Amino acid sequence: MSSSADSAPSRLTPATEAQAPSGPATAGESPVLLAARRARTAAAELAPLPRTARDAALLAVADALEARAEEIVAANAEDVARARENGTSAAMIDRLTLTRERVASIAADVRHIVSLPDPVGEVVRGSTLPNGLELRQIRVPLGVVGMIYEGRPNVTVDAAALCLKSGNAALLRGSSSAYSSNTALVAVLRDAVAGAGLPADAVQLVPGTSRESVHELMTARGLVDVLIPRGGASLIQTVVRDSTVPVIETGVGNCHVYVDESADLDMAVDILVNSKAQRPSVCNAAETVLVHAGIADRFLPRALAALAAAGVTVHGDGDWEKAGAGVGVPVVPATEADWAEEYLSDDIAAAVVPDLDAAVAHIRRWTSGHTEAIVTRDAQAARRFVSRMDSAAVMVNASTRFTDGGRFGFGAEIGISTQKLHARGPMGLAELTSTTYVVTGDGHTVE
Amino acid sequence: MSSSADSAPSRLTPATEAQAPSGPATAGESPVLLAARRARTAAAELAPLPRTARDAALLAVADALEARAEEIVAANAEDVARARENGTSAAMIDRLTLTRERVASIAADVRHIVSLPDPVGEVVRGSTLPNGLELRQIRVPLGVVGMIYEGRPNVTVDAAALCLKSGNAALLRGSSSAYSSNTALVAVLRDAVAGAGLPADAVQLVPGTSRESVHELMTARGLVDVLIPRGGASLIQTVVRDSTVPVIETGVGNCHVYVDESADLDMAVDILVNSKAQRPSVCNAAETVLVHAGIADRFLPRALAALAAAGVTVHGDGDWEKAGAGVGVPVVPATEADWAEEYLSDDIAAAVVPDLDAAVAHIRRWTSGHTEAIVTRDAQAARRFVSRMDSAAVMVNASTRFTDGGRFGFGAEIGISTQKLHARGPMGLAELTSTTYVVTGDGHTVE
Repeated sequence: MSSSADSAPSRLTPATEAQAPSGPATAGESPVLLAARRARTAAAELAPLPRTARDAALLAVADALEARAEEIVAANAEDVARARENGTSAAMIDRLTLTRERVASIAADVRHIVSLPDPVGEVVRGSTLPNGLELRQIRVPLGVVGMIYEGRPNVTVDAAALCLKSGNAALLRGSSSAYSSNTALVAVLRDAVAGAGLPADAVQLVPGTSRESVHELMTARGLVDVLIPRGGASLIQTVVRDSTVPVIETGVGNCHVYVDESADLDMAVDILVNSKAQRPSVCNAAETVLVHAGIADRFLPRALAALAAAGVTVHGDGDWEKAGAGVGVPVVPATEADWAEEYLSDDIAAAVVPDLDAAVAHIRRWTSGHTEAIVTRDAQAARRFVSRMDSAAVMVNASTRFTDGGRFGFGAEIGISTQKLHARGPMGLAELTSTTYVVTGDGHTVE
Repeated sequence: MSSSADSAPSRLTPATEAQAPSGPATAGESPVLLAARRARTAAAELAPLPRTARDAALLAVADALEARAEEIVAANAEDVARARENGTSAAMIDRLTLTRERVASIAADVRHIVSLPDPVGEVVRGSTLPNGLELRQIRVPLGVVGMIYEGRPNVTVDAAALCLKSGNAALLRGSSSAYSSNTALVAVLRDAVAGAGLPADAVQLVPGTSRESVHELMTARGLVDVLIPRGGASLIQTVVRDSTVPVIETGVGNCHVYVDESADLDMAVDILVNSKAQRPSVCNAAETVLVHAGIADRFLPRALAALAAAGVTVHGDGDWEKAGAGVGVPVVPATEADWAEEYLSDDIAAAVVPDLDAAVAHIRRWTSGHTEAIVTRDAQAARRFVSRMDSAAVMVNASTRFTDGGRFGFGAEIGISTQKLHARGPMGLAELTSTTYVVTGDGHTVE
């Protein structure tokens, strides 16, 4: 029977090459596609591994990050120097900079991820069918997860660790401004992963810093199972538009706070200021406040004073302008552009609406689908508002800033999805998995 | 305060126009985009409705189908006549044909869908966070579901009913060969839905039969929430490649049966013949059989006899050819193309593999990710096979034909997903929903 090996060689393609549905590597393939193909092979080796093997590799990663902090910080210094030459802002340089302490806290984050429950193998649904077939729907890794991200090098380790924890291979395309840092970090990660007996190709940095490499990653359908862009709106829109690989859209947050006629005004002021000003640069910060006309005359003066005290500039409609004039707080006249704007700064758009339904209409017209909040004492108003929103999260008498995987108790977050398919809202480890149906019988056939 | 209405008119856009994130309709917009925009408005009205309202509309649909069967059958006759003129095969004409009896059974299917549990509002995850915030992840409708499908007009009613049951608006693009039937059916559906007080635009047929109308539907991003193509491989690949709207890939099934060394041979023959021949034209029928070399000499002759008796032609490797010669059953020499083929006919590709891992490698190399089966008495072999597959369903000692929403007990099926994101395997009503996080507090702010 071993002669069978010769009769149809194609079926004996070694497993290491056989993983790619689009077949073995072809000559002259680009470095990005070759990396994706290696990732696919690694993913096939990762999938059947038990939690203990994945956790051991992650602990080795954490130890290696601390042991090799020196070379990581040295590589990072090259990026920082380049950023200085390019006149990058102090804030951006601070986000880019790695120190021994920051590397240690990144390692601590990895150890935290080790401690999280294993999403792989969870039985999502199970039953014994009337004919005796045993049906189980089980969580399995997605396979190859591509990440395209900007900014801080800690995302490189965070994304790789979350992918490994969930049994996925990570293909990382970070910012070119952090290329030296990311190259050093990924070298440390790969050595640690290989040292723990897992395939080093489970973690790869996309070769090169060209735009072309991003495009190749976005079109590696059949090799990359999902792409997760993390960064500004333009990056995300580019990926969503051009990718033929399935994408999980993240992050853009034009979040709204609606202050209902029945709101507790102290609570409304607190929630508004916290939603806008506690950390204006993040996607779950509020960008527009809508106020019911019935309480505008009482609420606007207090809101304007509190927002001014928090250093927030209001871009308001006619009512807000009048109220601003009344209390001596300057209000920038709002244009339609303000309703669409994700400021990510100490600015907020502000309007008065005649009723709750007008607030609903405004939000549905302009939202990016991230998070909306209502402040109200009226249970029916809360119910009506919640049932008419079309966003990943709706807050009732709570700050928009709570939309976060950590604050939701997921233990980790790979991003916040603003799309409706697969994952919506904060994405934890479970959102990095797919499922498969395992059906066990005893010779069952259909009639 | 009503003067506020003038100060920023944009925010007072009526709700009916405000639903489309891309804004109100623009002059000269195509009929398809206008239909999508109306669907979006209808979806916003459907979302908050309770189950009773949706079920009442579906019961009205079932009654109307029976009451107006005459005009449906008359319209269908036009399609059938056109098909005859075009020399369509008798089998295709049979699939296209509607009779009073078939319309009655379609109505019965709608009543069955009414009886299914409501997926909308199900709390998928819920907890009270340490700070007292109440977190609930709740199923909500996707919004606007676009269906592009071939063949039988009953799919038009089935898809519309499943969308309505799950609170979605349905935008239907059926086969041009069934355009008269679909036009009549959708007219009946819309009248019944409107008569029950729901928006008629919750069910729409995409205007026209041009390829252009399909392209417009595929690129209506922001108006259509998901596209589900149902039909042949070429249709599905076109949609997957060209759509900027999120797609749920369905149906293509290059399914495998692997007969392990330890298999019960009687069981293996039964499962193989059932998987291939019970209904060869469907996506969960087997297209390739792989046999462990250790039992090939005992299994191949029996399998060849049973497959021949079932009218199946074997496209086999060298071992199968030899075995065929031995028992006088002709075997067509297999080429690499056979490993990739979804025959959907009385044909099967067949190979002998040296061991289970070679079977795994072959399947991962060639599968479309639908369903694979192993026949074995060895629990470790079953476990190893299951953990190394990358498909929507894996059968252990059961026919591949069981991968079906009805047989899985889902009560309904909109299709079988072969992708990993959002839905994998048979899709029931839950797969036509997204989720949203509702977070209820008492003035909670973040520190």
